[in-house]
Amino acid sequence: MDWREELRALLPHERFTVNATELDRHSRDESYHTPHAPDVVCFPETKEEVSRILRFANERRIPVVPFGVGSSLEGHTIPYRGGISLDMTRMNRILQVYPEDFLVRVEPGVTRTQLNKELKKYGLFFSVDPGADATLGGMAATNASGTTAVRYGVMRDQVKGLEVVLADGRIIRTGGSYVKSAAGYSLTGLFVGSEGTLGVFTELLLRVYGLPEAIVAARVSFPTVREAVATANSLMQAGIPIARVELLDAESIRQINREHESHYEEAPTLFLEFHGNEAGLAQDLRFAQELSAENRGGSFFFEKEEEARAKLWEARHHLAYSFIHGYPGRKMMLTDVALPLSELAGAVELARKLLDQYGIPGGVLGHIGDGNFHTVMMVDVEDGEEMKRAEEMHAHLTEYALDKGGTCTGEHGIGVGKIRYMRREHGEGVELMRAIKKAFDPENILNPGKIFPQEESGR
Amino acid sequence: MDWREELRALLPHERFTVNATELDRHSRDESYHTPHAPDVVCFPETKEEVSRILRFANERRIPVVPFGVGSSLEGHTIPYRGGISLDMTRMNRILQVYPEDFLVRVEPGVTRTQLNKELKKYGLFFSVDPGADATLGGMAATNASGTTAVRYGVMRDQVKGLEVVLADGRIIRTGGSYVKSAAGYSLTGLFVGSEGTLGVFTELLLRVYGLPEAIVAARVSFPTVREAVATANSLMQAGIPIARVELLDAESIRQINREHESHYEEAPTLFLEFHGNEAGLAQDLRFAQELSAENRGGSFFFEKEEEARAKLWEARHHLAYSFIHGYPGRKMMLTDVALPLSELAGAVELARKLLDQYGIPGGVLGHIGDGNFHTVMMVDVEDGEEMKRAEEMHAHLTEYALDKGGTCTGEHGIGVGKIRYMRREHGEGVELMRAIKKAFDPENILNPGKIFPQEESGR
Repeated sequence: MDWREELRALLPHERFTVNATELDRHSRDESYHTPHAPDVVCFPETKEEVSRILRFANERRIPVVPFGVGSSLEGHTIPYRGGISLDMTRMNRILQVYPEDFLVRVEPGVTRTQLNKELKKYGLFFSVDPGADATLGGMAATNASGTTAVRYGVMRDQVKGLEVVLADGRIIRTGGSYVKSAAGYSLTGLFVGSEGTLGVFTELLLRVYGLPEAIVAARVSFPTVREAVATANSLMQAGIPIARVELLDAESIRQINREHESHYEEAPTLFLEFHGNEAGLAQDLRFAQELSAENRGGSFFFEKEEEARAKLWEARHHLAYSFIHGYPGRKMMLTDVALPLSELAGAVELARKLLDQYGIPGGVLGHIGDGNFHTVMMVDVEDGEEMKRAEEMHAHLTEYALDKGGTCTGEHGIGVGKIRYMRREHGEGVELMRAIKKAFDPENILNPGKIFPQEESGR
Repeated sequence: MDWREELRALLPHERFTVNATELDRHSRDESYHTPHAPDVVCFPETKEEVSRILRFANERRIPVVPFGVGSSLEGHTIPYRGGISLDMTRMNRILQVYPEDFLVRVEPGVTRTQLNKELKKYGLFFSVDPGADATLGGMAATNASGTTAVRYGVMRDQVKGLEVVLADGRIIRTGGSYVKSAAGYSLTGLFVGSEGTLGVFTELLLRVYGLPEAIVAARVSFPTVREAVATANSLMQAGIPIARVELLDAESIRQINREHESHYEEAPTLFLEFHGNEAGLAQDLRFAQELSAENRGGSFFFEKEEEARAKLWEARHHLAYSFIHGYPGRKMMLTDVALPLSELAGAVELARKLLDQYGIPGGVLGHIGDGNFHTVMMVDVEDGEEMKRAEEMHAHLTEYALDKGGTCTGEHGIGVGKIRYMRREHGEGVELMRAIKKAFDPENILNPGKIFPQEESGR
């Protein structure tokens, strides 16, 4: 009997499909990476079902690739070796909010906007906000971040505990409801960012924050990207506890204006947000305006009302889609370098220059308060010559960042798209990661072919 | 030839001793745990020397226990299986400060006060402050924290990169000078808190912070510990970004008054510190006083001047020594539970009650903004009956914390003193930790007998 039929028989009704539309939907992500279909898609609804699927897959050595909403940008969810796409979106319950402990317990298929809608009732919010409305399981798997990392940190800072199904079907729990612990190795931190290669998350315990007393958003334009970045650096140096500081170059603003019919000045711009108490925030704002003026920043346009703020940040979060809509037929390749703050201005300038030099349409944008930015490259995957140029440019900027003590990926993860930089960035550390992978998943069934350089891989 | 003579021959002059005084000094920590001497003490001065020692030890299967200033509280640095005590204190250079990147690169033997003295020149500070003037390598090894974790986080949040010598002598680097990364597994976070069982740190890249514009310290007394804890909880719920909030019970204040000839009111007290800009801090202070008054708090005694603040915090940091001086001939056993904030008041009350009930002299104190507190138990290690009672009380409180979703150790680490709780706290997770240990240190030479429950250990 075909393994697919055996697997189907193991599961309750409607947890399993080989429907062509579903196979296709689970064959791709939101990037330029070549799609590849799984053999089957499973939709587990409980940890026990996840455990049963993994135990079966482990015995048969069938690849398993966890899947959320497929908003990955580096091919993480593409099952290049076929097997099972494990769609976690039916496990989408918010299990419990613990307002006094600033914690929430969720299933992995809950999305960030679903969670924030619920948390608002308690005066709380979840801070991590990648552009996509991703699942929290997926965000934990890639150690995602977004616009607020500069103040609140990344996914690894928010995940306080996990329930994980291991490759052999064992179900374990890590971490707990306390703020801190020194009890043994940090398994939670190890699973976060492991991109589905060490286990499948079936529950997450997440840190949440009280909504600040006062929030003000602002935008301000500059003659050049260098001056915009210099202002962001000054804000950090001054110790202003800014909650968001996003760079958008002129081309990014153009895409926003086109998509949202807005009329922002089409120049390098910072989108800012300040959180605090009323008095402290007023002082921070005055100081920020002074620092901006010193770098030839224009007037601050303030958004104090929640609706206006939401519109500004929606435009920012939606920017990747705006680029996609702005370049029909093209796909998105992204650089995701993060650098020491002192090296950021040079790298952002270089990125803007390289787009022109390599003749790739796109823009530069990012979370520059934490040293991470993206070059959006809108590529025609059918045009081999252009793809080659785009890859060269991607490598050029990433090598530059690594030379300056940076990382090849600040928040998107390795997937398949950044594998080539793993050895360069981590050296012998890759062997330690591989040793961990082997200890946790000896049959290499969990998202095989991701993170680790292929040529050295055992299978 | 004796292995000790072979090892001596491998090293430059004065890196090796079997002097009885030195063996004795490296046989103990600051707690009640039974001393045990190493066979030799080595004082490496370079990573290459550390590598040479480990390679030798690995080939001969000789235990190696890294040692800083010996301020551990759970026996981490006690070489219960003999072998080599690896004293890292000669590697005590501050290698480079990167003010723009908010980073500093240090050798592991640098102590926290040594570092802060240097950072002050740049308007920066390092946030983590355990009571002892510990080495940064030791603090990283135990994922130490202290009074500021509530605002700035624990050691794992500050260590951005490491140079590590592995058991077989390989030298690797983890992390880097960027704020965030999603490139592969978090090796840095795994090494932090590994208590010398996975590798020996020879360099640390640490996050530092700009000195805040305004700092105000305050103390305020309460009729009962419950009301003090309730006030701390209210401060957290109100979202006041407090930098320090420490509980001291009446007995702890008595020890401070005796040791420092101060005249603080001998009642349950909070020591507080606020960091921010002038305007914001003034608003925070007003709000904090209101919340305190609602819980029957007395007047706030403010310390705005640096010297007065330093005196207050020195009294707090020195409190463990004050207890030791207050009970000559007795040794210190400490609970170190951390609980969900909603469970803290009950646990603190229980701790205070248990001291009376079990008839153990001591006090209750701790970092209650992050849910972590200590019961100081001053024990007579020669009195078997009292030791039994102390152990029972220790277990009583720790089991209570685990029942409430807490951890057995918020900041002191497992060492040998908390091993009995590992299985209870982590369940099957212990097996994953063991798998990592085996992958990194197959000969089990690195601090053997620590962290892992003995009865299941391979050797």
